[in-house]
Amino acid sequence: MYPNSLQELIQSFKYLPGIGEKTAERLAFAVLEMDEEKAEFFSESIIHMKENIHFCEICNTLTDDKICSICSSDDRVSKVLCIVEDAKSVFLFEKLGTYKGKYHVLNGLISPLDGVNPEDIGINKLLERLNNECFDEIIFAFRPSIEGETTALYIKQILSGLNIKITKLASGVPIGADMEYIDALTLECALNDRKEVT
Amino acid sequence: MYPNSLQELIQSFKYLPGIGEKTAERLAFAVLEMDEEKAEFFSESIIHMKENIHFCEICNTLTDDKICSICSSDDRVSKVLCIVEDAKSVFLFEKLGTYKGKYHVLNGLISPLDGVNPEDIGINKLLERLNNECFDEIIFAFRPSIEGETTALYIKQILSGLNIKITKLASGVPIGADMEYIDALTLECALNDRKEVT
Repeated sequence: MYPNSLQELIQSFKYLPGIGEKTAERLAFAVLEMDEEKAEFFSESIIHMKENIHFCEICNTLTDDKICSICSSDDRVSKVLCIVEDAKSVFLFEKLGTYKGKYHVLNGLISPLDGVNPEDIGINKLLERLNNECFDEIIFAFRPSIEGETTALYIKQILSGLNIKITKLASGVPIGADMEYIDALTLECALNDRKEVT
Repeated sequence: MYPNSLQELIQSFKYLPGIGEKTAERLAFAVLEMDEEKAEFFSESIIHMKENIHFCEICNTLTDDKICSICSSDDRVSKVLCIVEDAKSVFLFEKLGTYKGKYHVLNGLISPLDGVNPEDIGINKLLERLNNECFDEIIFAFRPSIEGETTALYIKQILSGLNIKITKLASGVPIGADMEYIDALTLECALNDRKEVT
C-alpha cells in the first residue's frame, strides 16, 4: 500500500524493540521530511557504527579503538575494579562522573536455567586480567537478581585465595521513591542494611 | 563518553520526533545487537527511500513512480475525489480498503496566521486537474479545525461554478469513546448532525 521504498524503511524501524507499526510509520515519515544531509548521516552512522565498534581487549567494553578510553586513561589511578554485566552499565556509571576506578564487562550473568554457565560469560578473561593487573577492591555492580547473586558468589569463591576486598552495590529504597510502592524484598534489604544517621 | 561511532548513531536517532536521549540510547544499542544484514538493510532503506520517493504528478501523493498506483489503477472507477491535507491521510484511507475513488493531496491547509496562503498549498494544481478529469463529488477530508474549515470554504467558493457535489467528513462522537471525555464542540457537532435511527 505504501510505496516500496517507504515500506522498506517502515519495516526497518519495526526491527527495533518497542517500535510497532504506528510508530514505525511516524518515524519513517519523519525521515522523509528530514533534510538530505541528516538522512545521509543517519544512514551512514548505522553502517559506521556496525563496522567500527568492538570490544576493548582489556575490559571488554564497547570502543572504536583497540583499547577503550577508560583502560588507556592515565587518570584512572584508583585501584578499584567494577564488574558489570554489560557494556551499557559502564556508560551508566560513567555518566555519574564520580567513579574513578576501572571496569570489567562480563557477557551477561550466570543463569543455569537459561543454559548460561560460568565459561559463557567470560570469567576466564577476568581471571587473566586479575593476574596481570593489581586491584585493592572489586565491586559487583549487577542487577539485584538471582542471576546477579549467583554470579557474584561464584566469582567471590574463585577469588577467595586473593587478598582483595570484595563489595557489591547497596540495595534499598530508591531516592525519591514513594514508600507505598516499594516491594517487600527491597524494603527488607533497606531495613537490614540500615545506616546510622550521622 | 560513548565511543564516537555509537554517539553518532544516538545523535541520529535523536533527530527523530519524540525520541529523547534515553530512547535514542536504547535504539542504538538495539542496532548494535542487530545482525549485520538487517543493519545494512536499515541503513540502505533510509537512502533508498530519500532517493526514490517523490510526488505523484497527478494527485501529489508519495510514490516511487512517476504516477502513483492509485492514479494509474483501472479499478478506481468511482467518480469521487477525496481532497486531503497530506500524503499520510491517503494511506489512512487506503487502509480502510472501502474507498474506491481517487485522491488529491494538498501541501497542508490555508492558515493566514502562519503565513500559509491558498497559492502555497497547491490549489492551482487541483484546479488544473479538475479541468482535465471529471468528478461527480468532491470530499474534503481535512482535520476538523479552523484551517480545515477555511481551506474547504475557499475551495468550495472557487468551484461554485461547477456542477459538482461537495461534501466533508462527518464530525461527531468517535466509536468506542467514553461520553465523559468528549469535548463540548464535538458533542455539539454530534447533536446537530444527529441521524435518524433506522
